[in-house]
Amino acid sequence: MSKPLILVTNDDGITAPGLKALVEVVKKIGEVFVIAPDSPQSGMGHAITVNSPIRIDKSDVFGKIPTYTCSGTPVDCVKIGIFHVLKRKPDLVISGINHGSNAGSNVIYSGTMSAAVEGAIENIPSIGFSLDDFAHDANFLPAQHFARVIIQKALASDFPDSICLNVNIPNLPLEKLQGIKVCRQAMAFWEDRFDEREDPLGKKYYWLTGKFRDQEGAEDTDMAALKKGYVSVVPVQFDMTAHHAISRLNQWKM
Amino acid sequence: MSKPLILVTNDDGITAPGLKALVEVVKKIGEVFVIAPDSPQSGMGHAITVNSPIRIDKSDVFGKIPTYTCSGTPVDCVKIGIFHVLKRKPDLVISGINHGSNAGSNVIYSGTMSAAVEGAIENIPSIGFSLDDFAHDANFLPAQHFARVIIQKALASDFPDSICLNVNIPNLPLEKLQGIKVCRQAMAFWEDRFDEREDPLGKKYYWLTGKFRDQEGAEDTDMAALKKGYVSVVPVQFDMTAHHAISRLNQWKM
Repeated sequence: MSKPLILVTNDDGITAPGLKALVEVVKKIGEVFVIAPDSPQSGMGHAITVNSPIRIDKSDVFGKIPTYTCSGTPVDCVKIGIFHVLKRKPDLVISGINHGSNAGSNVIYSGTMSAAVEGAIENIPSIGFSLDDFAHDANFLPAQHFARVIIQKALASDFPDSICLNVNIPNLPLEKLQGIKVCRQAMAFWEDRFDEREDPLGKKYYWLTGKFRDQEGAEDTDMAALKKGYVSVVPVQFDMTAHHAISRLNQWKM
Repeated sequence: MSKPLILVTNDDGITAPGLKALVEVVKKIGEVFVIAPDSPQSGMGHAITVNSPIRIDKSDVFGKIPTYTCSGTPVDCVKIGIFHVLKRKPDLVISGINHGSNAGSNVIYSGTMSAAVEGAIENIPSIGFSLDDFAHDANFLPAQHFARVIIQKALASDFPDSICLNVNIPNLPLEKLQGIKVCRQAMAFWEDRFDEREDPLGKKYYWLTGKFRDQEGAEDTDMAALKKGYVSVVPVQFDMTAHHAISRLNQWKM
């Protein structure tokens, strides 16, 4: 059997240690193709570049592994990777390892996860990995172990249609990690705050900041799993319909 | 009773005729506050600005209506509008009227809809409006009529928690519009293609393009409603969990 073709991307950009950590894992599993943003694209959500063209360039940062940088967003990387560079569907799209958690509502803001969602839209098994540590020099070894386990399971199993996986790894040493839990997205949100500053010309500018809080404290969520030292796996879909609300809206008799 | 406070934004930017059309509708309904991107932000999805600061500026494009431009994305507009400028929750967040449909999977790529989703995350009744016509000089009169009807219904009704509405209006004269249909998001996607060009220095660049196709042709979707001349209303949620896939993933025994 030929090796699976694995497209690897991220949102922290081509030079991020988390991307290197993920490439190290998959190069032993399949035929790897890397296409990553040429600059950091954190928080880009499901953005695509429509008002300007994009560029791609070959890169040798991963030696003999075919690698491109892209001037666009993580979703652009997946699209141009599949439809222009590879010209065929990969067997797996993986994204990460993100520097920072994408649990709770972060899934919506995350470029890492949006790349995986784009893979799901193309009906390719897709997985986004995130480590709960924003540091550039984070320890990716435990995350690499679990990424290997989950990628091998995904390739060997019947991957559900049109979904991707949101995998978050707690920032703990391997021996303290409790295992893997399949769970749902927590109702956890950012309490936003804007940090107001003044530029040298006296004009104001603002940094988005805030605290991330779990609003529900339920047991079956990704936030709860991470808190207990488990790797969380949430299946993510792109049907955003609130099906439960359809009958209530029909009562509005518009 | 005091007038409802309505935050208005869009993704086509402060000068878009669709924004003006929406402001004209709501200024007769409530106390209006406008904060819109200072440049076009189509396709920005749920992007937020985290790697650079953002700026806001007062604008007089809508006369006496308090109006700001923002250097960030549509989601940034909603966040800084609520948490910095208004410093209180509006009663309604509305976004649009977008130049172009946001039916099917467009909801995920759309800055217009992401602004509404951000309102839902803040648990504020929120609605995104889109007209199925990309033209700058599109006829917004029929869309204005239906926006008025739906906004008044939303303010008078019990709006479901943590959802927003994705409203799409067919590009038809008012007398040809059949009414309003509550429906689900169609499994309709872009068949992507990259248009390769060469710059004056001989270096290649790419435009994302493609055709949007309804993959299922079902009757209960937004795409089907639009095709029959109905205004489509899809309730949209931000819980992206594929709940139906959790039991299957548990069988992987990771």
